[in-house]
Amino acid sequence: MPADQATVRRSNLALVLRHVSTHGPCSRSAVAGATGLNKATVTSLVSELQARGLVKEMGPQHAGSVGRPGVALGLDGSRVGALGVEVNVDYIAAIATDLAGRVLIDRRIGFDAMGSGPERSLDELARMVERTVADLDRLGVRPAGITVAVPGLIDTTTGTVVVAPNLGWRGVPVAERLSRAGRAAGIPIAVANDANLAALAEYTTGVAAGTDDLVYLTGEVGVGGGVIAGGRLLSGADGFAGEVGHVMIEPDGEPCRCGRAGCWETKVGLAALVRMATPEHAYGTGLVRDPEERLAEIEQRRAEGDPRVDAAVAEVGRWLGLGAAMLVNIFNPRVIVLGGYFARLADRLIPAAHEELARAGMNGAIERCHFAASDLGFGAAARGAAGVVVERALSDPTSITVPSLVPPQNVPPA
Amino acid sequence: MPADQATVRRSNLALVLRHVSTHGPCSRSAVAGATGLNKATVTSLVSELQARGLVKEMGPQHAGSVGRPGVALGLDGSRVGALGVEVNVDYIAAIATDLAGRVLIDRRIGFDAMGSGPERSLDELARMVERTVADLDRLGVRPAGITVAVPGLIDTTTGTVVVAPNLGWRGVPVAERLSRAGRAAGIPIAVANDANLAALAEYTTGVAAGTDDLVYLTGEVGVGGGVIAGGRLLSGADGFAGEVGHVMIEPDGEPCRCGRAGCWETKVGLAALVRMATPEHAYGTGLVRDPEERLAEIEQRRAEGDPRVDAAVAEVGRWLGLGAAMLVNIFNPRVIVLGGYFARLADRLIPAAHEELARAGMNGAIERCHFAASDLGFGAAARGAAGVVVERALSDPTSITVPSLVPPQNVPPA
Repeated sequence: MPADQATVRRSNLALVLRHVSTHGPCSRSAVAGATGLNKATVTSLVSELQARGLVKEMGPQHAGSVGRPGVALGLDGSRVGALGVEVNVDYIAAIATDLAGRVLIDRRIGFDAMGSGPERSLDELARMVERTVADLDRLGVRPAGITVAVPGLIDTTTGTVVVAPNLGWRGVPVAERLSRAGRAAGIPIAVANDANLAALAEYTTGVAAGTDDLVYLTGEVGVGGGVIAGGRLLSGADGFAGEVGHVMIEPDGEPCRCGRAGCWETKVGLAALVRMATPEHAYGTGLVRDPEERLAEIEQRRAEGDPRVDAAVAEVGRWLGLGAAMLVNIFNPRVIVLGGYFARLADRLIPAAHEELARAGMNGAIERCHFAASDLGFGAAARGAAGVVVERALSDPTSITVPSLVPPQNVPPA
Repeated sequence: MPADQATVRRSNLALVLRHVSTHGPCSRSAVAGATGLNKATVTSLVSELQARGLVKEMGPQHAGSVGRPGVALGLDGSRVGALGVEVNVDYIAAIATDLAGRVLIDRRIGFDAMGSGPERSLDELARMVERTVADLDRLGVRPAGITVAVPGLIDTTTGTVVVAPNLGWRGVPVAERLSRAGRAAGIPIAVANDANLAALAEYTTGVAAGTDDLVYLTGEVGVGGGVIAGGRLLSGADGFAGEVGHVMIEPDGEPCRCGRAGCWETKVGLAALVRMATPEHAYGTGLVRDPEERLAEIEQRRAEGDPRVDAAVAEVGRWLGLGAAMLVNIFNPRVIVLGGYFARLADRLIPAAHEELARAGMNGAIERCHFAASDLGFGAAARGAAGVVVERALSDPTSITVPSLVPPQNVPPA
């Protein structure tokens, strides 16, 4: 059964790679002992993982071993990496990591994606990808894949943005466009929702790492959500799950950029805060000009004790708690992680939100849930995007081809 | 490694049992071919499954086989069964099935659980369990387990109802009480949320069977919800997920029995319908006297063309659609299954709800989601409760002990 043998070998490659990733440095014998595979098979699998640039020998290992020391194996961070990029309303970001999740490159540029339209935004995104792949190239690292984070509904099978209300995009083929960026040629490209990716980053590396039931909320010009339920990302039938920003929270409320009224975003998005805290900068339904500057000014005025700013942040916190109560009733999460601008104002937002949550929620689920401020900053989505690439590489090492790959016929049989 | 061997054998027992359950009748050779286990091992595993009353020989199998016909194996429905019981506001129900999910006993009695308090309700529930186990006994069937469905938040580790607002229960140790019912002694008892169990029943046997992303809503005196996401029941950190009835849908709305105001239940629960359709029977916040009679009267008046009743049902449908829009934004389900009284009035409720949903929802997710009326009736939760017992038995056949079990030392080694 050759097809089955290939499947078994792929799954064993993943088993060995994941063991080295989690428990390395460790010897081939240790890998054999822990996985139940025999040593000859482990030796063959390790050879292929070395050829694919995923595992390397790190010198003899002594500690705790009996008899002849084995050669320690570790993740090879030198040749294969992961690239996550994000386009959002007012910036483009890129984070590249090695397979252990160590950040190699972290960059962010201000860019008016909303005002520039999809064509120019994709050009800028392609430039960011080109530049980052080139920098990785100089480090001798090739990305195993690229994942693009976009604040909208994504058709993940084709990598097309179905609709991104806060960017004004509809039917934008992001993956197809980026695959034409010269340096990205041949690198698999995926597209996913920004808040879902950020939720994954929080689950793997953030303040709530390892919490199997968490809700991530990001406050930007838009409000996004991502849900980890039972240790898995909630994606829904089409990958559209977690669109909490456009849940109706106030019937007959203010109009929203999505075309309806009373959405949660109209109460807790950055535009709502700017309008209440610094009305002289209010700018139109759901829009914020220079959001980074506006946020900095609000933080500055809070520090100076401006009561209007303080009241505005508290009011946003109140609405945040009201919506959170709904999410707690529905998801029963252990933690609600606040990202984006919510994290920057967390010291005031969290007490106000918590007070409202305690007033509005069911008992039991409420008492066991708390808010936490993300420490991943605005890079959470790009970080999660890189994490998806790493996860895919660890789950299927045969998906990795590096220029120096030994042809399959030279790989010893299992 | 004896511990590991026991684990491997348990998992192989489950593998063989599930194959027979899904593909049977089938020969031992066919099981060996499909599972990759060798024939001697299959023979040994089948012997143990026979001893546990889970698999039986059904006579020689000819169709499609070459050479000497194998003896066909099938699920043994004669000795091991599953029991699901439900206590709700105005009734107690029990459904017993065999391991193939065939219904052996289906009974429902009207009972004023809300008015009777937890002690008398548990007495009545214990009587229902006693009676059903006795009837199964007469059929020669022993339940592998009992699962109790309750409309509330459940501590599933202890089988205690934390709070059930519509029953007026708080901290009621259901599993402990039922384990003292004589005939239930020694049978594992679990307690779970009624709507979650009904969602499982819809996923396995109902109108949306096999739909990996579905939301189940049940309209009774209370409104419950259960969510299947990515083929798994959404349970949350404490098993409290899916409490959609108490999501706030109208700020400053009517008071709810849960102590807050504006909950979805105040708009779409049976009390809301009764108050609008037949105000002469309105009875107090969130309460309905003789709900079955009220519903029958409303159906009767609708059939007679009473415009007030029609308008009331349409208004409930409108609020149903408004809440459904929120659920679609959050879960991106393919189907919203309507159970309880919603199913009885579905021909009018669904068009009204769909109109509102189309107006209020995000595009993409909305267009690909539809409403469907459950055909499981008020028995959905008890059916799902029995299904949980079957699923546990299929996943771990060693959990099944029947009086006639061959002692372990007589089981041939693998």
